[in-house]
Amino acid sequence: MRALAVVGTGLIGTSVGLAMSRHGVAVHLVDRDPAAARTAAALGAGVAGPPAGPVDLAVLAVPPRAVAGVLAEQRARGLARSYTDVASVKALPLREAGEGGLDASFVGGHPMAGRERSGPLAARADLFEDRPWVLTPAAGTSRTALNHALELVARCGATPLVMDGEAHDRAVALTSHAPHVMASLLAARLQDGKPDALRLAGQGLRDTARVAGGDPRLWAEILCSNAAPVVQVLREVEKDLAGLRAALEDLARDGGPRPASRHQVAELLERGAAGLRAIGPAPAHRPFTQGPFRVTLAGRPGELARLLDTLGEHGVGAHEVTTRATPGQDGVTVEFPAPAGGAEELRRRMAERGWHAEDGSARPRRDPLPQPSPAGRRRDEDVVPAQRVASLPGG
Amino acid sequence: MRALAVVGTGLIGTSVGLAMSRHGVAVHLVDRDPAAARTAAALGAGVAGPPAGPVDLAVLAVPPRAVAGVLAEQRARGLARSYTDVASVKALPLREAGEGGLDASFVGGHPMAGRERSGPLAARADLFEDRPWVLTPAAGTSRTALNHALELVARCGATPLVMDGEAHDRAVALTSHAPHVMASLLAARLQDGKPDALRLAGQGLRDTARVAGGDPRLWAEILCSNAAPVVQVLREVEKDLAGLRAALEDLARDGGPRPASRHQVAELLERGAAGLRAIGPAPAHRPFTQGPFRVTLAGRPGELARLLDTLGEHGVGAHEVTTRATPGQDGVTVEFPAPAGGAEELRRRMAERGWHAEDGSARPRRDPLPQPSPAGRRRDEDVVPAQRVASLPGG
Repeated sequence: MRALAVVGTGLIGTSVGLAMSRHGVAVHLVDRDPAAARTAAALGAGVAGPPAGPVDLAVLAVPPRAVAGVLAEQRARGLARSYTDVASVKALPLREAGEGGLDASFVGGHPMAGRERSGPLAARADLFEDRPWVLTPAAGTSRTALNHALELVARCGATPLVMDGEAHDRAVALTSHAPHVMASLLAARLQDGKPDALRLAGQGLRDTARVAGGDPRLWAEILCSNAAPVVQVLREVEKDLAGLRAALEDLARDGGPRPASRHQVAELLERGAAGLRAIGPAPAHRPFTQGPFRVTLAGRPGELARLLDTLGEHGVGAHEVTTRATPGQDGVTVEFPAPAGGAEELRRRMAERGWHAEDGSARPRRDPLPQPSPAGRRRDEDVVPAQRVASLPGG
Repeated sequence: MRALAVVGTGLIGTSVGLAMSRHGVAVHLVDRDPAAARTAAALGAGVAGPPAGPVDLAVLAVPPRAVAGVLAEQRARGLARSYTDVASVKALPLREAGEGGLDASFVGGHPMAGRERSGPLAARADLFEDRPWVLTPAAGTSRTALNHALELVARCGATPLVMDGEAHDRAVALTSHAPHVMASLLAARLQDGKPDALRLAGQGLRDTARVAGGDPRLWAEILCSNAAPVVQVLREVEKDLAGLRAALEDLARDGGPRPASRHQVAELLERGAAGLRAIGPAPAHRPFTQGPFRVTLAGRPGELARLLDTLGEHGVGAHEVTTRATPGQDGVTVEFPAPAGGAEELRRRMAERGWHAEDGSARPRRDPLPQPSPAGRRRDEDVVPAQRVASLPGG
């Protein structure tokens, strides 16, 4: 690909321009607002203004309802040989463009990347790196258009994911649109909060409600453009919410222990925790492949804090560390993983500081530590895993 | 205060121990799990085991339903002269302790601080710094107990907030318990997601659902302990959700533009955005008191990116910067604030790099920039505020 046009130089369009310019592609920046195109150009995303002749690919970085109109307009002008969009809803542009509107030169696209802030000034050349970028080719999409779109995705550092348009829309209803609705429903309640109550707002509330700060007009358009799949998710939420509210109403009445209602509350929370596990950790999560290692501390105050500091210097977080009471002694035994390839360096540093790290993974099964202590206590009983809840979450 | 006991050495209890030990207070760490108390002691939070005689204050850092029982038990043993707790629900312990159970020596407390992780290893001496710490003295609470609790709050670096217990419980239903329910309701839907759909999970979903990863048993206990205030919030959420779902159902049918339903969707999102503004920015937000300043760039590609880097080195984020097309010229005019007391240094650095920053705030009103351009365009039309949405949020 030698030349690319970006129509709409907001966050996504400008980021595309930055990424493609880095690869030596000539990028032409088009926006009905000249300040936006000039800002994108001043950032290094390309040249403001339309190209003299047709480019290889035009990226239509405009809201969902504008895609069909902008596509027809730019195609009439002969802006590009292939077209793709970045809209977060894929079925609607197909419907709105009607028969022949989306011909072989168009392939739908949706990069799964964004930031809380919008506009060209929020753009980053690495916005799409290691993120999924959905492409929704139709039966009639040409191989040329698909390959241009795949080249765009590759040069932006993203991972292509080919999906049916309807399946994409169901997926984003679940992973993006329903979360926005939940955040807005919650945040709307804060309007009734008394000032003293709102002073108690903590990080949990801020995170849960954060996306409700997105532009209401844009998000209304997104939700309305994907109404049927969003309704499917919300109906299930309504059922769960009605059940939970009824159980809590039951528990709010004076009287007996009401185990069935307690169970219903716990069951929803268990399902929530399981659902969260289903999406797995954030992609940046770094795997540990060595260890576990063990150190026994004599129990001097502050020694564990110093050990955690040392581990932290080597990239091992406190949440990856477990402790247990050393059987028959006053101290604690600390178990931790080591980063891939970094175990020897970590052990050397620990030795300098007076700690001997044993390799627990290499020890034979007859290792005395995992055995019952003299008091006959099971090993599991006095292990403190990092996620153990021994007290209350505040906030 | 010379001596303190902490009962329950999880995240909160151990963090209290760390903070108070730093101030030279003798801290005794009590937990029914010896590994947890020893871990806290090894971190430097105090000495594992109960004190020989009564201490000044005992902090009961145990779950809500355990407070009344632990209080009765420790009072019978004469652990301390005053008692406080850290439970996230305040009315229930009062009810459960019954008449005389919570005497003059007890003052309810709730530090509004926490972390995603739990257990002593997640503890930090600065966990409570600049956070609100609610105290709920009853009519019969002694001045001694209240002052011991206030000293605890002060030495932990927190800000005391005295509230009625019932008002506290309504406040946390809104700011902590309802958010947890919303996150769990959303996360529960992910169990039905197909693997390709779940690959599209982005930061928005992860943030909205994050708190659903909290321990389900503990959170079930919290919700059940505060059922009536949580039900009050959830009933309002149910109404809004039913209205939104009905509007989207209407829009999902083929046919006309349906402006009333579109309006209903937009109206909920507007209320959400307004509610989010009601809690204001996170407390760490740093005020800017100087400027705005202006620089006009000639439009060389990448120059704006270099300017943003320079501003960033001085603590000015891209979201605080606006750009506009320079009237009658090719370039862009960039406007930005300066951190309090840092404007001169920033301007000097900019001058070294070839930019002349004008002080827009100090200029007379007849400054040509805010005037209509020769084309008669209003100034506001081509301003790009940082929050402008010119493209789509992905993810």
